[in-house]
Amino acid sequence: MRKDFGAQCYLFPLPVLMVGTYGTGGRANVMNAAWGTISNAEPPCVVLHLDADRTTLENIRATGCFTVSPATEDTLAQADYVGLVHGRDVDKIARAGLHANPAAHVNAPVFDEFPMSLECKAVEICESGDCVRVKGEIVSVSADESILGENGTIDPSKLKPISFDPVNNAYLAMDRRAGSAFRDGLKFMK
Amino acid sequence: MRKDFGAQCYLFPLPVLMVGTYGTGGRANVMNAAWGTISNAEPPCVVLHLDADRTTLENIRATGCFTVSPATEDTLAQADYVGLVHGRDVDKIARAGLHANPAAHVNAPVFDEFPMSLECKAVEICESGDCVRVKGEIVSVSADESILGENGTIDPSKLKPISFDPVNNAYLAMDRRAGSAFRDGLKFMK
Repeated sequence: MRKDFGAQCYLFPLPVLMVGTYGTGGRANVMNAAWGTISNAEPPCVVLHLDADRTTLENIRATGCFTVSPATEDTLAQADYVGLVHGRDVDKIARAGLHANPAAHVNAPVFDEFPMSLECKAVEICESGDCVRVKGEIVSVSADESILGENGTIDPSKLKPISFDPVNNAYLAMDRRAGSAFRDGLKFMK
Repeated sequence: MRKDFGAQCYLFPLPVLMVGTYGTGGRANVMNAAWGTISNAEPPCVVLHLDADRTTLENIRATGCFTVSPATEDTLAQADYVGLVHGRDVDKIARAGLHANPAAHVNAPVFDEFPMSLECKAVEICESGDCVRVKGEIVSVSADESILGENGTIDPSKLKPISFDPVNNAYLAMDRRAGSAFRDGLKFMK
């Protein structure tokens, strides 16, 4: 038997994305966005759906750039905090003990505490219902050496990304490999 | 030190979404989509970014409806399989041993094996770069009683959703609670 929950913004997983921008005077800001995903492959793009009144949106409109970093188990509280307060009211970066540095390829900050970042150039900023859709071309992805596996690429068991559970207002760990993509389904092709 | 990976479609987490539709003659189909998220709250909407040649797209254009169900650890191989083959070539549903039933609110199938489903009406189908963006209004979310917690709502430790790791072509489990949203960050506000 299925139970009906009505019209809800429920989905698993939703990400916990730290969106980094520079504001007036080059002041770094970061927000917590759960409604984002990859939207294109050629060129690689990420898409975010943000509230229209976000400081982040003002900053992206001004600089044309932003970064996207997955929040991690180690930065869960910081990620939660930057989603609770407004960048125009308080210096979130300082309060959360985050350290901003200029990204290598775009005019936006990366943070020492977030070891994986997508460096993006905004290619579309568009109202869409009650949100604003921001599409960014992913110019480059960078990762701290501390989260690389033996094969030299990003190891999720070291990155320890988290996801947002919109049903229970919780964060879920996702560091355990459950299977192999483009392989585990092959058994049904025989 | 950060290592640069260039322009890549890397993000954590990406979902593993089973998109259910009815095709010609009411034949159920399901595809595997990793590029989707919630896009709006009022009304609740989900957005998917699909290849333009998908059978699923033809079906959504014809019926105006689809369902979205998170793949789970228990259905990982089935989910992987339906992403490996084309619905026009083979009866994916039968081969994967899935059981389709009409959704309660829209003209699209839900599957016994996927215990949580978003029932959606397509409100936008739009080319966007190399993909087609499909936005669906979430008419209702349903969940099988087997995945409900004691509080009567969806328990991720019972649903056992998986996420897609695009760096290593792997699926990640995410059934362990790591923290509380809108709470764990409060300590930085003192």
